[in-house]
Amino acid sequence: MSSTAPRPILLPADRLTAAIAQISARIGAQYVITDASDMEGYLVEQRGLFRGATPAVVRPGSTEEVAFVVKICAEAGIPIVPQGGNTGLVGGQVPFGALLLSLGRLNKVRALDATDLTLTAEAGCTLHQIQQAADAADCLFPLSIASEGTCQIGGNLATNAGGTAVLRYGNTRDLTLGLEVVLADGRVWNGLSRLRKDNTGYDLKNLFVGSEGTLGIITAAVLRLFPKPRRRATALVGVTDVHQVLALFRRLRAVAGDTLTGFEFLPDFGMETVLKHMSGAVRALQGQHAFYALAELTSTRADDDLAAMVEGVLAEAFEAGEVEDAVIAASEGQSQALWKLREDLSEAQKFEGGSIKHDVSVPVSRVAEFVEQATAACEAHMPGLRVCAFGHIGDGNVHFNLSQPVGMDKTAYLDTWEDFNRIVHDIVVSYAGSISAEHGIGFLKREELVHYKDPVALDVMASIKAALDPAGLLNPGKMLVAKGE
Amino acid sequence: MSSTAPRPILLPADRLTAAIAQISARIGAQYVITDASDMEGYLVEQRGLFRGATPAVVRPGSTEEVAFVVKICAEAGIPIVPQGGNTGLVGGQVPFGALLLSLGRLNKVRALDATDLTLTAEAGCTLHQIQQAADAADCLFPLSIASEGTCQIGGNLATNAGGTAVLRYGNTRDLTLGLEVVLADGRVWNGLSRLRKDNTGYDLKNLFVGSEGTLGIITAAVLRLFPKPRRRATALVGVTDVHQVLALFRRLRAVAGDTLTGFEFLPDFGMETVLKHMSGAVRALQGQHAFYALAELTSTRADDDLAAMVEGVLAEAFEAGEVEDAVIAASEGQSQALWKLREDLSEAQKFEGGSIKHDVSVPVSRVAEFVEQATAACEAHMPGLRVCAFGHIGDGNVHFNLSQPVGMDKTAYLDTWEDFNRIVHDIVVSYAGSISAEHGIGFLKREELVHYKDPVALDVMASIKAALDPAGLLNPGKMLVAKGE
Repeated sequence: MSSTAPRPILLPADRLTAAIAQISARIGAQYVITDASDMEGYLVEQRGLFRGATPAVVRPGSTEEVAFVVKICAEAGIPIVPQGGNTGLVGGQVPFGALLLSLGRLNKVRALDATDLTLTAEAGCTLHQIQQAADAADCLFPLSIASEGTCQIGGNLATNAGGTAVLRYGNTRDLTLGLEVVLADGRVWNGLSRLRKDNTGYDLKNLFVGSEGTLGIITAAVLRLFPKPRRRATALVGVTDVHQVLALFRRLRAVAGDTLTGFEFLPDFGMETVLKHMSGAVRALQGQHAFYALAELTSTRADDDLAAMVEGVLAEAFEAGEVEDAVIAASEGQSQALWKLREDLSEAQKFEGGSIKHDVSVPVSRVAEFVEQATAACEAHMPGLRVCAFGHIGDGNVHFNLSQPVGMDKTAYLDTWEDFNRIVHDIVVSYAGSISAEHGIGFLKREELVHYKDPVALDVMASIKAALDPAGLLNPGKMLVAKGE
Repeated sequence: MSSTAPRPILLPADRLTAAIAQISARIGAQYVITDASDMEGYLVEQRGLFRGATPAVVRPGSTEEVAFVVKICAEAGIPIVPQGGNTGLVGGQVPFGALLLSLGRLNKVRALDATDLTLTAEAGCTLHQIQQAADAADCLFPLSIASEGTCQIGGNLATNAGGTAVLRYGNTRDLTLGLEVVLADGRVWNGLSRLRKDNTGYDLKNLFVGSEGTLGIITAAVLRLFPKPRRRATALVGVTDVHQVLALFRRLRAVAGDTLTGFEFLPDFGMETVLKHMSGAVRALQGQHAFYALAELTSTRADDDLAAMVEGVLAEAFEAGEVEDAVIAASEGQSQALWKLREDLSEAQKFEGGSIKHDVSVPVSRVAEFVEQATAACEAHMPGLRVCAFGHIGDGNVHFNLSQPVGMDKTAYLDTWEDFNRIVHDIVVSYAGSISAEHGIGFLKREELVHYKDPVALDVMASIKAALDPAGLLNPGKMLVAKGE
């Protein structure tokens, strides 16, 4: 854990009681939770890094009710933490004494237009619900992340979620055309635009996307859909080192262009960990390889022979001595089996003891160098450490996870988290990289942000925060260190 | 002209003289222009709508020199108008008494990486220069607009330029990974990131892109490149009404997916105007058609038979009675000849007398309805008016231009500009559209913005402006009405 314990927020009891009574009268007493056991699911985050505390969980059922709650809190000076599916990995959704505003009841898909290729969803819709709604209209909503069954789109927007299709479709902000946002004073900005082009002022949408609930509370969004792919090809390739993964990426991208929708990698240790612990995981290549690349291609053309294209590229790579072995999925089931080897990795790592995680990115061209240098530095720091560098190499995004040495005490290992942060993040920054590629800052990384981020950028961020939330009541102490802390 | 004459900015002569002397000493006297005839090219904008005035044109040669100029001006309270290629269409680049800061000497491509697919360019590079640099590295920079030979990337970024490839590649902001910006107090924000994923704070990049120089002065950018297409197909299709244009778009997009990079349209009047006035324009289809669609497809695969795909889609459209006639270019020369019919339209319209122009967008699904309703309303308002609605229909972006009735006095016609603004923009807004799809607000449309934009959004914009440029010295009176005006 890299952050010091949060200082709890203390509020005058009478003001709080009065505000909660007003909120309860408006949204219904059954939607204001104060019972400790009923609040439990909102206060514990999944990695167990933080335990939250709140006077009440409030669950408004509409944008107007959210606006009412925010207005009451603004008038009473009560801080608010907005929460979606509570799947965030950096503690952004955890209250430390603030009121918890859950968006889960705003769960309607308001509209879908297959010509505009847009879907308007409320913040509390799960990502899976939105994927399904798009699919039912013969469209694709390409955002795909591990928690998609329970995470909510409002949280995806607040954290600018990434995932496995960023290479082709971009991050959540790239999938967003418009927003509806409750501002810090309770006013509603209706920016639910379905337009592809609109140069009438500052880009407010992108300011709120990725701001982790610190500038406003997103209540709905217009999302971009895409024509549904008709063909798919998935290839798993074994190579001798991480530079070969990158070489294959360059080779494939030059030919495949937009049909290359994902390009992932994992190391031998990761592959063997999945095969050892996960039921249903099946070895797809003969023998072991230092690294594996997983390439996903899709096309809207039903007669597009993607497999033949990949075969052609792989044949050239074999000739150039860049590839040891490869398999191309011949069916949808085989594609899923290959993806399972990659997707089960985070889960499988839990069986290998403590894992110290870094979600970093560097320029794509330098990702192989980075992996080698950071691996060597970490192994030198702790003999027996098992580096598991995997992820979205096509975007330069590496989940640089470190499994503990076999037999070491887990707690003693996890106590070294900050040491490894410094080692890994120093190297990341020397490559002009990011210490949080897709998970955000939240509470976990806010001190790392102060340590590494350009002071001019931090100063501009603080100016914007002060302009849009002058009293500092929206998700206080997240991303930025709050005034007076 | 839809805007009242600007109130000139008056500055105390001694402060101004002292500041210009300081600037001259730092950047070199030859780069501080005060001679009236030498300033002429910076003060007249191409449509002749505005005539600027400035005490001096300063031409710094580096980011550090830009920062110096801004700092001196900040200390002396001197407002600044940044200018690139002076090709803007809404007067954003025109000074009304402020100092003019020309970025033209910052014209180096600093870096290009074909693996990262990034190019780092200074603000004064022309768009054409950047296209050429990308091409030389076997990459594509897809931004393409009519003024590409003289416009500068800094201006493209400041106005979030659009163009003919937005359908596939997005607007300028979508093509930008990082920025270097001189802030209002002269500090430099170095945000020249080459990262594809970086969730470490607010999205400052998108705040500056499209802010028309009112929040900071962009001095350099990291731009996204793409694998160079190896195949191209261009089709010109004649149809009976604008709904059929949209029907063809839907049909083609569902099959072509990402290979559909552009989808434009123009009316019979537009086609005949080009054929009548433009040398080298050749009729491509037998007979005349109410509307023409122009589809552009590209692929990175050298063996991709795009023409066969388009033929298949067109055959289905013929069978469904949606298409009257069509031609598919069989060579690069034929592709260019088809594009010439579309690209020469703005120029050709000048031969038909006064033209009142609207750069609007509506949701793609409603663009045909919009064109019909707005056409009927304008024709009813002025018999003999010749509507020329053309543009980027695949993005919902219509250049709704109105050529004067034959024989009418041009000045008398142009005096009705505001009447037509009200008619067209009222209809646009009723379709949840935008009164400026790609040209921006500048000085020309700032009162229209106040008239139509959501007051909450305007208020948030004003808060951001006050936070980042508290003295209001950066491009004052553009986009937003300045404090105290």
